[in-house]
Amino acid sequence: MKKLMNSPDAFVDEMLAGLVAAHPSLVHEGRVVCRAGGARKGKVGIVSGGGAGHLPLFTGYVGEGLLDACAVGDVFAGPSVDSCVQAIHTADGERGVLRLYGNYGGDRMNFDLAGEMVEMDGIKTTTVLGTDDIASAAPEEGTRRRGVAGIIYAYKIAGAKAETGADLAEVTATAQAAVDAARTIGVALSPCQIPGAAKATFEIGPDEIEMGMGIHGEPGIWRDKLRSADDVADEMVRRLLADPVASPSGRVSVLVNSLGATPLEELFIVYRRVAALLKKEGLTIVRPLVGHYVTSMEMAGLSISLIHLDAEREKLLAAPCACPFWRV
Amino acid sequence: MKKLMNSPDAFVDEMLAGLVAAHPSLVHEGRVVCRAGGARKGKVGIVSGGGAGHLPLFTGYVGEGLLDACAVGDVFAGPSVDSCVQAIHTADGERGVLRLYGNYGGDRMNFDLAGEMVEMDGIKTTTVLGTDDIASAAPEEGTRRRGVAGIIYAYKIAGAKAETGADLAEVTATAQAAVDAARTIGVALSPCQIPGAAKATFEIGPDEIEMGMGIHGEPGIWRDKLRSADDVADEMVRRLLADPVASPSGRVSVLVNSLGATPLEELFIVYRRVAALLKKEGLTIVRPLVGHYVTSMEMAGLSISLIHLDAEREKLLAAPCACPFWRV
Repeated sequence: MKKLMNSPDAFVDEMLAGLVAAHPSLVHEGRVVCRAGGARKGKVGIVSGGGAGHLPLFTGYVGEGLLDACAVGDVFAGPSVDSCVQAIHTADGERGVLRLYGNYGGDRMNFDLAGEMVEMDGIKTTTVLGTDDIASAAPEEGTRRRGVAGIIYAYKIAGAKAETGADLAEVTATAQAAVDAARTIGVALSPCQIPGAAKATFEIGPDEIEMGMGIHGEPGIWRDKLRSADDVADEMVRRLLADPVASPSGRVSVLVNSLGATPLEELFIVYRRVAALLKKEGLTIVRPLVGHYVTSMEMAGLSISLIHLDAEREKLLAAPCACPFWRV
Repeated sequence: MKKLMNSPDAFVDEMLAGLVAAHPSLVHEGRVVCRAGGARKGKVGIVSGGGAGHLPLFTGYVGEGLLDACAVGDVFAGPSVDSCVQAIHTADGERGVLRLYGNYGGDRMNFDLAGEMVEMDGIKTTTVLGTDDIASAAPEEGTRRRGVAGIIYAYKIAGAKAETGADLAEVTATAQAAVDAARTIGVALSPCQIPGAAKATFEIGPDEIEMGMGIHGEPGIWRDKLRSADDVADEMVRRLLADPVASPSGRVSVLVNSLGATPLEELFIVYRRVAALLKKEGLTIVRPLVGHYVTSMEMAGLSISLIHLDAEREKLLAAPCACPFWRV
C-alpha cells in the first residue's frame, strides 16, 4: 500500500507537526496536542487519546466546547503513560479532569495508571469509556464493547457541558449518558496498512465486505459478497435500532462516517437510505453528520452511529464549539 | 473496485438526494443544487458545475459567500445544457450571473450554449474558467490549462466579492484575477473507477506514482517509483513557484487536498514540508487548507494549490461564508 511519508518512525510526529502548523488553534508538545493558550481555569478538563491513524480522531477534536488535550501513541498503539499524564496536566483547570477515550486494553491501562499518578499531584480524575461498537459484544456485555466513531458525540456533549461550568461529577455523568445512548456499527471493504508493516491489517476478497469489522480490522459479524448500498444500510440500521437503550426519546443524531477511502458520494447514497429508514421508524434526525470523522487511514468502508437524544443532550449537541473538524 | 451504491445509473441522483437530506441549507431540483431560499435579489449570481465524482466540488460549495447554484452531470461527464440553463435561472438575482467552472471542453460547450439561451431571457452572463493545473499546459498556453482544486479559491473570493454588492463586471474581474493567481499540481498514487465502468480510470504499478496527473486520470509529467513525502512535496512546490504570476505579494494561501483515499495523516506530513518550504522562500501563508476539498472518489494522491494574495483577495478570503464544506 503506497503512502506519502518519509519514514514509518517519523509518521506520527510529522503528522502532528503538520496538524498544528495548519491549525493555529492547536499546539503540540511531544505526543500531546492541546488548545493554544492551554487549560481554561475553572473549567473541568476533558482529555482523550489513543493510537494514531484515525484522524480527525483524536487530536482534531481539541478545541473550545470539545476536548482540552489528547495523548497520542504510535499508529494503532496506545499512548504512553507519560503522554497520558502530560495530557491530564495540560487539561487541568483546577476543577478535575475527565478521561474520555475508547475501550481498548492498552489505552485503559496507561490512562488508569496516569490517573493514579496525577492524583498524587492533587488532580482528581474520572473515566468514561467509549463502548459504542455493537458488533464487538452482546448488549448484556456492553462494558466489553470497543469504542469507535460514536465517541465524538460524547466529546461534543461532554465538552459543551464542561463549558457551562458544571463540576466533574456532572460532566462525567453527562459523558457516560452520551456513551450509553450511542450505538455504532461499521462495514469494511478494504484494509489499511500500518506504516512500515509488511502487509495490510487484514485480507479481504475483491468482491467481499465484512459487516461489523472494527477500526483496527477486528473481526466482524459476517463476511460475504458486496451487496447494494441500500441492503447494507438496511441491515446496519436494523442492528442499531434493535440494540436496546434506556428511554429512547424519538429524537436521534446520526453519523455516516468514512473509514478513510470511501468517498463522500457513497456516504451520501447511504445517508439518503438511513434517513428514510429512521423516518419510517418515526424517529426525528437532528444535526446529522456525514463525512470523515473517525478513520483508519486508507481503509475503505463506513460506519453508522446513532445517538438517542434527550432534551439536554440535544441542547449540548447544538451548543457552539470551535475546532477544525467538528462540522455540521 | 468496490463501491457502496445501488446502481451506476442512480449513483449521482441518490448522492444528491443524500447531500440535500444531510444539509438543509442546500436544495436540489434534478441535477441542479442551489441555496435553500433560492437566488438573492440584487446580488450577482455565481454558478458552477461539471461532472460528478469530485465531492465536495461542486455542489458542496453552494452557500452564502460562495456559489449560488451548480449544474451536475454524470460522473466525470459535464452537465446538460438544460441543467446549465436551470442553474443560471436559479442563481439570477437580477444583477447578472457569473459562470465560474473548470476548463473542460464539454462543460464549456454546454455552459456557453446555456449563456446564449438565458441571454434571450434577459439574463446577462459572463464566464471565468478555472485553469490552475500547471501540469496540463505550459505557462504561455495558460488558457489551455485544465481547472482543478485551485478553483475553490476563486469560488470563495468571487463569492465574497458578490456579497459586497459589486456588479457583474467587478465580480467577474475579481474571479479572473483569482484564477490568474492560483496554481495547482497533483500527484496520483492509485486510480478511481467510474460507477458501472469495467475497469479503473488508469493503471499504475503498486510502487509507482504519477506527477501532474489530472483529476480524471489525464496523463501527467512523469511516472516513477514512489518517493518520500518530502521529495514529492519539494518537487511540487518548486514547480508551483517556478510558474510565473503577475506581481506576487509574498502572501499566499495553500491547499493540500486529498484526491480521495489519501488520508489526513499523509496530507499533514506533506503540509508540514510545504509550509517549511514556503517559509524558506520568504512567503507568508494565510489561512491554509488541508483536507478533502476536490476529490476523484476513491483515487489516492493529493494536490497542492497555491494562490498569491493581494490585499483585496486576502480580505475576501477571510470574509464570512456559510457552506457545509468550506473549512478553515
